[in-house]
Amino acid sequence: MELIDLLQQQLLQDDLSEAITTAASMHPADVAEALQEVAIQKQAVFLAALPHRQAAEILQKLELEEEVLILNQIGPTLATEILREMSTDDATDLLAKLPKESSDKLILLLQEEGQGLRELLEYEEDTSGGLMATEFVAVREDQTVVEVLSLLRKQAPAADIAYYIYVVDHTNKLTGVLSLRELVVSPLTAEIGSIMMRDVVSVPEDMDQEEVARLFDKYSFLVLPVVDEENRLIGIITVDDVLGVVEEEATEDIHKSASISPLETNYANAGVFTLFSKRVFWLLGLIIVNLISTGIMAAYEDVLASVITLTFFIPLLIDTGGNTGSQSATLIIRALVTKDVELSDWRDVFLKELAVGVSLGLVLGIAGSCLGLFRGDLRVAIVVGLTMSAIVIVANLIGMILPFILTHLRMDPAVISAPLITSIVDAVGLLIYFSIAAWVFQFSL
Amino acid sequence: MELIDLLQQQLLQDDLSEAITTAASMHPADVAEALQEVAIQKQAVFLAALPHRQAAEILQKLELEEEVLILNQIGPTLATEILREMSTDDATDLLAKLPKESSDKLILLLQEEGQGLRELLEYEEDTSGGLMATEFVAVREDQTVVEVLSLLRKQAPAADIAYYIYVVDHTNKLTGVLSLRELVVSPLTAEIGSIMMRDVVSVPEDMDQEEVARLFDKYSFLVLPVVDEENRLIGIITVDDVLGVVEEEATEDIHKSASISPLETNYANAGVFTLFSKRVFWLLGLIIVNLISTGIMAAYEDVLASVITLTFFIPLLIDTGGNTGSQSATLIIRALVTKDVELSDWRDVFLKELAVGVSLGLVLGIAGSCLGLFRGDLRVAIVVGLTMSAIVIVANLIGMILPFILTHLRMDPAVISAPLITSIVDAVGLLIYFSIAAWVFQFSL
Repeated sequence: MELIDLLQQQLLQDDLSEAITTAASMHPADVAEALQEVAIQKQAVFLAALPHRQAAEILQKLELEEEVLILNQIGPTLATEILREMSTDDATDLLAKLPKESSDKLILLLQEEGQGLRELLEYEEDTSGGLMATEFVAVREDQTVVEVLSLLRKQAPAADIAYYIYVVDHTNKLTGVLSLRELVVSPLTAEIGSIMMRDVVSVPEDMDQEEVARLFDKYSFLVLPVVDEENRLIGIITVDDVLGVVEEEATEDIHKSASISPLETNYANAGVFTLFSKRVFWLLGLIIVNLISTGIMAAYEDVLASVITLTFFIPLLIDTGGNTGSQSATLIIRALVTKDVELSDWRDVFLKELAVGVSLGLVLGIAGSCLGLFRGDLRVAIVVGLTMSAIVIVANLIGMILPFILTHLRMDPAVISAPLITSIVDAVGLLIYFSIAAWVFQFSL
Repeated sequence: MELIDLLQQQLLQDDLSEAITTAASMHPADVAEALQEVAIQKQAVFLAALPHRQAAEILQKLELEEEVLILNQIGPTLATEILREMSTDDATDLLAKLPKESSDKLILLLQEEGQGLRELLEYEEDTSGGLMATEFVAVREDQTVVEVLSLLRKQAPAADIAYYIYVVDHTNKLTGVLSLRELVVSPLTAEIGSIMMRDVVSVPEDMDQEEVARLFDKYSFLVLPVVDEENRLIGIITVDDVLGVVEEEATEDIHKSASISPLETNYANAGVFTLFSKRVFWLLGLIIVNLISTGIMAAYEDVLASVITLTFFIPLLIDTGGNTGSQSATLIIRALVTKDVELSDWRDVFLKELAVGVSLGLVLGIAGSCLGLFRGDLRVAIVVGLTMSAIVIVANLIGMILPFILTHLRMDPAVISAPLITSIVDAVGLLIYFSIAAWVFQFSL
């Protein structure tokens, strides 16, 4: 942390040459952290003064929004030089964020490399094609260990690219893989074809990034090759690129659970209008669902007017129902999203949640009737207790069933947010409440 | 997928020798997947028939609960042989799940290795010490490249262990690191001290696993060394171990957001009683918070009795308030947990959420007054519209402020669940509602 503070101070005081010296012994991620409190102009001047490779490494560690601002500051010629030093996956992410005009200009200036980036830009951002880098080490089966070692010496690829050496045939089709470790411990004259593993796990170019992350987790791979529909090797994904994906997807799911549309940026970078628009339509939509509750209340106006005590328990009852439904929905959605539970498990899950719901219903029903006795009389206690049990059991099952139905319909179960469950359960809960009340108090409508 | 189905069929039909042949060409993770539908006894018989190394690799890919059942089936002698072939981090996780008696027995049988595992068992499960494996390649500065290469040939460590070679002094203190790639491209006679990187990022043995995951993400490392308080190298963590952590922590946070205590297992493995107990105390606790709402309703009994129409809007108003508060709380908690927003940013965040809240309040207030006009009269419309705006603005700020207060008190902000926010906002919302109603309808209490 000390070096970060020192660099920050030097930059704020415009000690450019000292800052360059300090940064030389720092990890690019730490330099990027130091830059965060510094004005964009100063960041640009500093990065322009660094060796292009170092500037590229630091730039890759900044937020995309900042990268764009800095590129605009330093001008196209220098930007081109720095982009050339970035890994293709990061360069592509950056170009995708630029206005079409600027990115076209940079791609043109990048000439041959630019053409490769243009192709990468075609991939959807959240697929394996959008994640992959096109830097990798590929050799042929008939090469020997010593040939590949000398190739590595010549190419000097970045460390995380060289961990696996991919083997392709003359049409570039992926036929095998070997780890650098295997290469190192094999006899120098051995042919690659005799030591490589032929059973290569690869991912298609259009696989969803969440799926890719799950493969990394399942197989404990550090790198996965990406192939096109003809099994030709077109890129690699390293596990560190996926680490961010898992957190990003979790954030999106957490936001959805509270009825917030995906922000597409992090909270700190989201403006007031973005936050407003990602929330307002959900809130308005939920109001419409809530109108059902309002209607039910109006329909039972007579019951309410006669036993006003009953209204006291409305927030308590509908909240408890909403809470119970949110709990089961949250558990089931997360289990479905992480593939812990499959669609075909619905019967087991239903029975499990029925048992849990009945247990919860018993305990909460007793609690509810005690409160009823305290605020009202025996009849109120009976109504509140019975309603509480019924609402809890029903809400628990609604929270379980809806995510399964959505998954069955091939929709994202995470759309079943806690607020939506709450609104649905409210209406159902009020119906249960008034039905039981009407029955116990012998009202007729 | 085809091989997985084939193996499953062979196991179900007790074609043991054919199953062994099929499994030989499969990735351990795929074999583990095939085993999932097979009875534990059959799994045990099959694993016992495999080479110990292969059995260990497959076992590591199963759920911990299953591993424990299988170990019990195959008996201590074979269990010891298989444990010996597992990586130390996985073996430790497994031993930690066994009853004390069984794990002590196995540790004794494992002799020297057992002692190492016993030490690993001392670490908290969710810290760097609990994640690390003690297999790593460590060399001295004065060794040459060719010496290290021949050491690697002799040790033949697993591929993911050999990516980085750590350099230690005679007291085992970490002094440098070099990647296998650097080793491979360096002159054979070079001394390690002259090519290694001296600025090693390492983690202390007691670092929280979420923090470790964040370091991996920040620096894009694939492996991180773990050191004790004297900077002695004691283990390594590979990024694939952390991938699961990120998902696990996200699941825990998602569960907390719905007032569910951490399950400590996945949903599919959680029994009815576990699910019940992780939920019931929260639901009961929330009932107590909800009693405030019941009390407020009772206090305003006269208002309710005189204008019964007002009760119709209670679910709508308190739900919308709860939804708004849950949205802002969810956004802020996630931003705080992922360090996207820091405690010191509270002023900016407050102003941002004030602006968002006022915008939402205006839109929803208009919607509310329309509904009031539809169900009641002009006065009801005024009361419902004003209340809606006020509740939305206040709820939005409550959702923002509470997580900051908890973080300030060094408590986990994720405790502020959507149900808790809802319950708090309900009480506040009812107070606002009745105050405005009493003012517009000129009631006095």
